[in-house]
Amino acid sequence: MSAYDRLDAKLRHIHALESISGLLEWDEQTLLPADSADQRQNQSAALAQVIHQAQADPEIGTLLDELETQNPEPETQNSADSIGPIIRDARKTYDRATRLPSSFVERHARLCSEAYHAWAKAREEDDFPSYAPYLQQHLDLAKERAEHLGWGDRPYDLQIELHDPGIDTETVDRLFTQLKTDLAPLAQEILSIPSKTAPDLFTGFPIDRQESFLKEVTTSLGFNYKRGRIDTSLHPFCAGNGADTRMTTRFDEDNPLDSLFSSIHETGHGLYEQGLPLDSLHNALGTAAGMGVHESQSRIWENQVCRSRTFWNHYEPKFRVAFPQRLASVSSEDLYQAINAVSRNPIRVDSDEVTYNLHIIIRFETERKLFSGELAIADLPAYWNAQYEELLDIHPTSNAQGVLQDVHWSGGAFGYFPSYTLGNMLAAQLWYAAQAQLPSLDADIGNGNFAPLLDWLRKKIHRHGARYHLLELTEKATGQTLSPTHLLRYLRERYLA
Amino acid sequence: MSAYDRLDAKLRHIHALESISGLLEWDEQTLLPADSADQRQNQSAALAQVIHQAQADPEIGTLLDELETQNPEPETQNSADSIGPIIRDARKTYDRATRLPSSFVERHARLCSEAYHAWAKAREEDDFPSYAPYLQQHLDLAKERAEHLGWGDRPYDLQIELHDPGIDTETVDRLFTQLKTDLAPLAQEILSIPSKTAPDLFTGFPIDRQESFLKEVTTSLGFNYKRGRIDTSLHPFCAGNGADTRMTTRFDEDNPLDSLFSSIHETGHGLYEQGLPLDSLHNALGTAAGMGVHESQSRIWENQVCRSRTFWNHYEPKFRVAFPQRLASVSSEDLYQAINAVSRNPIRVDSDEVTYNLHIIIRFETERKLFSGELAIADLPAYWNAQYEELLDIHPTSNAQGVLQDVHWSGGAFGYFPSYTLGNMLAAQLWYAAQAQLPSLDADIGNGNFAPLLDWLRKKIHRHGARYHLLELTEKATGQTLSPTHLLRYLRERYLA
Repeated sequence: MSAYDRLDAKLRHIHALESISGLLEWDEQTLLPADSADQRQNQSAALAQVIHQAQADPEIGTLLDELETQNPEPETQNSADSIGPIIRDARKTYDRATRLPSSFVERHARLCSEAYHAWAKAREEDDFPSYAPYLQQHLDLAKERAEHLGWGDRPYDLQIELHDPGIDTETVDRLFTQLKTDLAPLAQEILSIPSKTAPDLFTGFPIDRQESFLKEVTTSLGFNYKRGRIDTSLHPFCAGNGADTRMTTRFDEDNPLDSLFSSIHETGHGLYEQGLPLDSLHNALGTAAGMGVHESQSRIWENQVCRSRTFWNHYEPKFRVAFPQRLASVSSEDLYQAINAVSRNPIRVDSDEVTYNLHIIIRFETERKLFSGELAIADLPAYWNAQYEELLDIHPTSNAQGVLQDVHWSGGAFGYFPSYTLGNMLAAQLWYAAQAQLPSLDADIGNGNFAPLLDWLRKKIHRHGARYHLLELTEKATGQTLSPTHLLRYLRERYLA
Repeated sequence: MSAYDRLDAKLRHIHALESISGLLEWDEQTLLPADSADQRQNQSAALAQVIHQAQADPEIGTLLDELETQNPEPETQNSADSIGPIIRDARKTYDRATRLPSSFVERHARLCSEAYHAWAKAREEDDFPSYAPYLQQHLDLAKERAEHLGWGDRPYDLQIELHDPGIDTETVDRLFTQLKTDLAPLAQEILSIPSKTAPDLFTGFPIDRQESFLKEVTTSLGFNYKRGRIDTSLHPFCAGNGADTRMTTRFDEDNPLDSLFSSIHETGHGLYEQGLPLDSLHNALGTAAGMGVHESQSRIWENQVCRSRTFWNHYEPKFRVAFPQRLASVSSEDLYQAINAVSRNPIRVDSDEVTYNLHIIIRFETERKLFSGELAIADLPAYWNAQYEELLDIHPTSNAQGVLQDVHWSGGAFGYFPSYTLGNMLAAQLWYAAQAQLPSLDADIGNGNFAPLLDWLRKKIHRHGARYHLLELTEKATGQTLSPTHLLRYLRERYLA
């Protein structure tokens, strides 16, 4: 067996174990009996240990040394060659697995578990000080990780890189500053239009019909239910991979749009996973390019496609067939307004696509200042609230409604938030590129034919896996560098036209 | 850390990985999307490799050597001491993991996969000859396994031991010969009573009500749904362990008794798992004593308890509340007869508790002759059909209805079948012992109070884990050696009274 074949077998083994880990997490959030979490923790810990051993297998190091000699310059991100990106990503995983001491991995896992429970309790009791020490430990561990991995002088860059390879703080800062300059006044302008608030129209939508309607929609978008499922969980998510994609949604009889748009959002993630090359899920060619690219795929379907008038011209009659009595008194315009409502909401996950990115910009600036030392953990609540006041004219009435609202930091996931807005920017940029390249795109969507857009995304984004990073992919797909102008244009057209 | 503590940590690690393997199998049979089986195969193979590595960890051998020196005679099955059984079982697992070459393990896994598909095809096409070579390979591999593990002169004993530790061919033969002598004529006598056949009473029982009724029943039997679930699968089974017990059933609108009794049967298995000491699931103290004991726990609830008049005196009114229209024309006597119907059925899994054990005796004698060389694979169909004719007056019209009906041999699981009848014998013996020791047992069951019987089984069977084997447990629980007389008495009382 060649060195490449031996590496390939090891990567397949690691990927199989990692995909099991994903299934354990999915099961935990969908089906796990109430009192069985203790065993799930033991299972996840045992599997994490086994995965780390497999990733740090010294033979992988030897094989990589050999392959890197045979294939010089595997570091070149632009390499069109297949083996280059595979070796590059395998090297990254191997180096990270071997450079992080197992004592660090254990401390981090323990802190994640403790901090999660501390966060949940602090949020419930609106008690930031009880959570602050865990945040401090996570910040310290993130800096320690950066030391181990050779990023000691720029730990926040590493945090961003962990979620979006190829992106750094300076790039995010430049893009977000441009975006914020125009978005802050635009959001205020849209928020001042009274008709943009959500009408209170929806009660008593039977859940079984919500479920069959969203299955009809997500199937027509292209989700392959022969290699996937949709179940329910407290918070919607998409787990698994293209070989077995597990989405979730949640149902509320009085909020049918929530389950529908949650499932459309997760379908966007699922379509990306299902569009990655199935025979390469274990290496860079079948791996997502990062969280930002992933989010662009969920958002383009959720927002640009499925909140559009064109989409609802096709689906409104079907929606009315599914709920004839419930929608009898709802006008078409009311329905469209409800789908595109905008409001001042202190909670990021409940906010609309206009204000959402301001929530993210606040988080990015907060994280950057935490890592630079400009902001102390103890001063977080005051800083947070001041930012919300300035940018969004929102005055959180509690820390539970403010700095305690997100789960991310309890898992040490600093640097994750920027991906959401990078994804929103890319989604809008892809949308206009697709419109330019597919003259019948609007007509197709109006006919419920989503295959042309999906095929375009498959060709421009999905099939490349992690071969290119977000900025490279953006240029290749749209012919332009990543820019917030497309998102701003889209928001103006959608909300001010 | 002491040698024992180090062994304990390793056993916990192995158990966590094994329990993940169980979850993968459960998910495969309940939820896995239709086209995702390819990834599940890769996941299961990767996990099996990791489990085998963990079981064969040389440090376990060193620790066992040390602990065996400190704790002489750990082989004594009767040891009341806790460490003895733990060391004994850990030694058995370690020796088997290290003595079986990985090439054997791989060949066996590959054969199981190939033979399963060959069996499914052969059964569908009624084509025994196409399956025969796989059976021969499984027989050869079983003998090779026996050589590796030091059982070369008695490979069928090993097969029985793999399913029921402490039991050998001679013991099964002696018990089954006694049973058969009286059961064959008893079955013929019962089968000659016309009223014993099932009345055709059941159509259109809504599945959601079947589900809520069986949840009511299984909850009242004592199944803890906070540490377990019931879902649907093609064939009912019970997976997981006491920390997270996953039962399945199946639903048919025209056969509500099938889903009900399937779920009661699996609840019996689940109650046993949930009764094993939760903090010892990773060692012998929290492990089931064998398949025979496991089956005794499913059968005592399914048959002795839940097919009784006493049980139905309590549950018939509730059953009628769940299905008022469907049961309006069904008399109490008809219902009871349907629950206790007896008939000549060529299919084991569809047969009643009277004829069931004759199906098993045929399989035991067949397997024994295959291993001794008295019977060749090519002669299996003729031998099978002759046995069915002689013992049950059943004339299979095809091999699909005959020797091809069971999945077991396609996985090389020779020696599994005897467990079913050993379990039936033990169930009846436990039933009479419980009646003798719990004077109000009948009254309790008639009041829907199953806690006294469950507590008795917890005390007599569950809490001992694998400390004692089937024959020892029988004596401890009932004061008598295992004997078929109790099963025969029970069948006479139930079907001839």
